[in-house]
Amino acid sequence: MIIAIDAMGGDLAPSSNIEGAIEAAREMPDIRLVLVGDEARLTPMLAQAPTNIEIRHASEIVEADEEPVKAVRRKRDSSLVVGVTMVKNKEADVIISAGNTGAFMTAALLITGRIKGIDRPALSPIVPTVGTAGAMILDAGANMDAHPKNLLQYAIMGSIYAKKVMGVESPRIGLLNVGTEERKGNDLTKETYGLLQESSLNFIGNVEARDVMEHVCDVVVCDGFSGNILLKTMEGMAKTMMSVMKEEFTRTVTSQLAAMMLRPGLKRMKMKMDYAEHGGALLMGVQGTCIKAHGSSSARAIYTAIKQAKKFVEQDVNGLIAREIQGESGDSHV
Amino acid sequence: MIIAIDAMGGDLAPSSNIEGAIEAAREMPDIRLVLVGDEARLTPMLAQAPTNIEIRHASEIVEADEEPVKAVRRKRDSSLVVGVTMVKNKEADVIISAGNTGAFMTAALLITGRIKGIDRPALSPIVPTVGTAGAMILDAGANMDAHPKNLLQYAIMGSIYAKKVMGVESPRIGLLNVGTEERKGNDLTKETYGLLQESSLNFIGNVEARDVMEHVCDVVVCDGFSGNILLKTMEGMAKTMMSVMKEEFTRTVTSQLAAMMLRPGLKRMKMKMDYAEHGGALLMGVQGTCIKAHGSSSARAIYTAIKQAKKFVEQDVNGLIAREIQGESGDSHV
Repeated sequence: MIIAIDAMGGDLAPSSNIEGAIEAAREMPDIRLVLVGDEARLTPMLAQAPTNIEIRHASEIVEADEEPVKAVRRKRDSSLVVGVTMVKNKEADVIISAGNTGAFMTAALLITGRIKGIDRPALSPIVPTVGTAGAMILDAGANMDAHPKNLLQYAIMGSIYAKKVMGVESPRIGLLNVGTEERKGNDLTKETYGLLQESSLNFIGNVEARDVMEHVCDVVVCDGFSGNILLKTMEGMAKTMMSVMKEEFTRTVTSQLAAMMLRPGLKRMKMKMDYAEHGGALLMGVQGTCIKAHGSSSARAIYTAIKQAKKFVEQDVNGLIAREIQGESGDSHV
Repeated sequence: MIIAIDAMGGDLAPSSNIEGAIEAAREMPDIRLVLVGDEARLTPMLAQAPTNIEIRHASEIVEADEEPVKAVRRKRDSSLVVGVTMVKNKEADVIISAGNTGAFMTAALLITGRIKGIDRPALSPIVPTVGTAGAMILDAGANMDAHPKNLLQYAIMGSIYAKKVMGVESPRIGLLNVGTEERKGNDLTKETYGLLQESSLNFIGNVEARDVMEHVCDVVVCDGFSGNILLKTMEGMAKTMMSVMKEEFTRTVTSQLAAMMLRPGLKRMKMKMDYAEHGGALLMGVQGTCIKAHGSSSARAIYTAIKQAKKFVEQDVNGLIAREIQGESGDSHV
């Protein structure tokens, strides 16, 4: 299996991408990792790397603030576009990027195309929940004005992922809504509710945003706008609360001492809230396997994304989705 | 000024409602408080109350899980409906309820009606932010499928509130979106962006969910579905993180000791995240002044809502909204 990594994408690129790749390459000698990026910059950083890592040269970089469609069209030799093209040409099984999200989604869609029968791909991150499992959100921002049929397809894709990659036997599908009662919500959720109920998915009904972190379901289905609000509020609250905590814990000598005594607990707490433990966001529904790692991905996050990518490919999730969607009569949903 | 309180509404009713009312009545001898509810139950609890609190009997209670429209139509003698009717009949200037949100919104709309020119009222809570000011969210759940014009009206109402009640000189209005760039978002936000830009409001552009708690703006404008997701994710994350913290802090004797040493800081932290310090959610755009206190309101939250109500009435926020909306040519927005 060949896993390509956009070495130049992300706030901490290329160092954290390389570090994460080296760790993964050591642990999984059966995979081959290809770092896509500026060869002159990358080569010296790979002096100690194991032999199952190589470099694929790409001369350009898509910056974080570039307009996605323009960037993909103009920067044909960027690490991001070259990486996605490798997947299209079957030179790699997966591409992982921590770079410009919009550009990555655009490249994935334009270059590798959609899985036949899927109307709209979904950006599908896994958010931390109480316990360790996490929950997949589809869609967290690929498709802003979604239709009920899109949400049904998200549910099917999420269910397959949760079963095959997260190892959940009968994934619980929740519809993100403003209340748990059936008739709650907007036009989109009301119509989607019926579609999900008629499907053979393990649909548990509407779920409220505050219950997502309590792990009431394994897969949260929503339009890309709402999913983005959910995801970014979770991220923002975790960050804000951690910084408020830090402020309080460093205020006095007593509080500093107490914080030291609490260090193992605080570390565990941070890990529980940490996206780095849950891998990247899949672009579910595109032909090529494309994983969007968080913009500020640490080496650990890249390493986790590589492990996730391996499992995704081994389990042939995209193949299962294609078969499921083509036989979409409602009676064989995973 | 007469402030009516639905004594029977809320998870901790009637005790926390009564406690909060007594505290407020003592501190503000110039207001009169009317507790609406079961006289036989309330009378003994008011033995020590100051003379500016009285009881208005109402024999029924709207339960938290009742279907709103049915409850309002059938339970004419419920504390919730009687309280809203008092406002309609000018027997009270404000009604505060911690009861069934849907029923309260329905009663407010059906019984007191909309402010002339306002198409849709907005449920408008104030969420905690870094610092102490808080930010108002409109709409957090009154109107699920909103139009751009609704959002413009929310912005106008929120701006007047922030100026008059929160004391912000030139309230910063943000449009909740998935990114800060102008062209981001769904059909609704794209069209609303233009309307807000043409207005004379202090529109600062799109704001991301993760920046709301960082207080990038004083007023956050959004459709009721997205606002509800934002609000409930914030609540849920605060609750989940506090419970993870508690778990870690009670794990060992050392961590328990450390938590004791940190108590003042933890208390300050909890206060910073506490909705009870920010009053209730206004139903902006209805004729009568109706304040929805949080379902699990403490005495402190009720007390804060009473102070908020007093200021709202003193500043004649509803009168200002009516005048602003009627002269809605865009050149005199507060």
